[in-house]
Amino acid sequence: MLRTRFTELFGVAHPITQGGMQWVGRAGLVSAVANAGALGFLTALTQPTPDDLRAEIARCRGMTDKPFGVNLTILPTIRPVPYDEYVDAVIDGGVGIVETAGNNPEPYIVRLKAAGVKIIHKCTAVRHALKAEALGVDAVSIDGFECAGHTGEEDVPNMVLVPCTADRLSIPFIASGGFGDGRGLAAALALGADGINMGTRFMATRESPVHDNIKRRIVEADERQTALILRSLRNTSRVHRNSVAEKVLEVERKPDVAFADVQEYVAGVRGRRTYEEGDPEAGIWTSGMVQGIIRDVPTVNELVTRIVEQAETIIRSRLSGLLVA
Amino acid sequence: MLRTRFTELFGVAHPITQGGMQWVGRAGLVSAVANAGALGFLTALTQPTPDDLRAEIARCRGMTDKPFGVNLTILPTIRPVPYDEYVDAVIDGGVGIVETAGNNPEPYIVRLKAAGVKIIHKCTAVRHALKAEALGVDAVSIDGFECAGHTGEEDVPNMVLVPCTADRLSIPFIASGGFGDGRGLAAALALGADGINMGTRFMATRESPVHDNIKRRIVEADERQTALILRSLRNTSRVHRNSVAEKVLEVERKPDVAFADVQEYVAGVRGRRTYEEGDPEAGIWTSGMVQGIIRDVPTVNELVTRIVEQAETIIRSRLSGLLVA
Repeated sequence: MLRTRFTELFGVAHPITQGGMQWVGRAGLVSAVANAGALGFLTALTQPTPDDLRAEIARCRGMTDKPFGVNLTILPTIRPVPYDEYVDAVIDGGVGIVETAGNNPEPYIVRLKAAGVKIIHKCTAVRHALKAEALGVDAVSIDGFECAGHTGEEDVPNMVLVPCTADRLSIPFIASGGFGDGRGLAAALALGADGINMGTRFMATRESPVHDNIKRRIVEADERQTALILRSLRNTSRVHRNSVAEKVLEVERKPDVAFADVQEYVAGVRGRRTYEEGDPEAGIWTSGMVQGIIRDVPTVNELVTRIVEQAETIIRSRLSGLLVA
Repeated sequence: MLRTRFTELFGVAHPITQGGMQWVGRAGLVSAVANAGALGFLTALTQPTPDDLRAEIARCRGMTDKPFGVNLTILPTIRPVPYDEYVDAVIDGGVGIVETAGNNPEPYIVRLKAAGVKIIHKCTAVRHALKAEALGVDAVSIDGFECAGHTGEEDVPNMVLVPCTADRLSIPFIASGGFGDGRGLAAALALGADGINMGTRFMATRESPVHDNIKRRIVEADERQTALILRSLRNTSRVHRNSVAEKVLEVERKPDVAFADVQEYVAGVRGRRTYEEGDPEAGIWTSGMVQGIIRDVPTVNELVTRIVEQAETIIRSRLSGLLVA
């Protein structure tokens, strides 16, 4: 077992989170993560309405008596999203932990804090982490350039971002992006983080609700098969590099491309259908560089147990064994 | 002290190298690194002729009786470079260790090996590391996306690149890019590397031959002040983000830009003058994201000692202290 500021603060056994993943963060996976002693997050916007989120929270609670959280990501969207009603669902549902992310979550942070909910704010830059700390969040999840999904525009990887954050942030924080095994967990702890967040690694588990073909593709892919799309909109997203992602990049490279065209094109090829129907070339879907070290589809419990055990062995045997008087 | 496959193989006290840096890797710095128990490399092409390299090797030997090496980087150049004669200078000078880098160093690897020189090959991708291993090099220096200078085109940061390399390479390897303190050293060892290489961190030392203004700029800059130039030529280089770098990016962004124009523009603003004359805005110069954690200009010996001590403390106290039964 590894005890850090993170495990103490959130009352979980292991310093590992399964952060918000659109279409993936559902009760089956999140409860499995909770039962394994890590901290999982339902993704609020995976549920089409706030009432669906209420039902999903209840479903998750039926499958675990351990803590779990809800991710609330605020992003530019074409049709308005009733964020306040999703926040109501979280508070009414008695969820004690929320992961906030995206543009300007300040009003929701304020509301959640007032309701006594613990908040982990996810961001990609040290100054945003400091801003969140000033707003009173309880912890930060700092997202390196390696991460799947929204990378931000500054491209600072965790080897640099984590120590930069450790030097300036006082509250506990976990590192996100590029993590999939005990080596990464030990490295993150060495760099000053209090734990790790994993997305892609949890997608490729037995309890993850994505199609087996998608899990297989993650296992087969190496660290180079991701692409950064939507950089032209300054809304960069790391996705699996398939033929659709290549097409998006082609559209973006056109010198006279209109932003609306890119946005519309991506909206048309993005979404949950790929995950559910299982054609890895059918649309845009998210995966991270860490797929380079993902080689199996274990149960969540097997995964969490082996990551913690590997990190412990690295600390006790490998690293301590390098020390000479 | 930390003993790894790297320190054993090269007969040095610490698992740290100061790899090749054009204009910077000179006898004063390299001998200081050797005397501190780490492994420094003179940069062959910093010397205008092979005979100048012979003289620099002799000068370095006059300042240390510890092992040091020479970096030989093979890059596309406008005028032809007599690489074979530089290799002669290395072999004749009795230098026992060479760091190779760049495009197709195979013929030089073969020659150096035949002469009994130990080789560390520097590269940015796992498959290139495996190729070098097959050619018989003794060790690899794997260069993550964080690194200063030539990043390659695949943008895989060390948090992912190091474990991917560890899983497939048999010979010892060190990680390069983003390293500047004991946290990074401990993290690299946790991820499976046998040591670290540092460039920017060694540039900002007392013995480094760059102007004090450049060292001061590195100390002042944060992790975001680097830029990737020459991506349009697929010869990407991470440099300090100053007004000249911004101008290069502007030239590269033009939809109808000719490659030759970019190359010519950069050739005109690149080089050692900036380092020697000390105007950080006068030209293109190299620095890495690790500047975000560089806050002083210590002697090389102070730096190496404190990095090793910090890594030891992290292993002995911080990491071991997180373990609970």
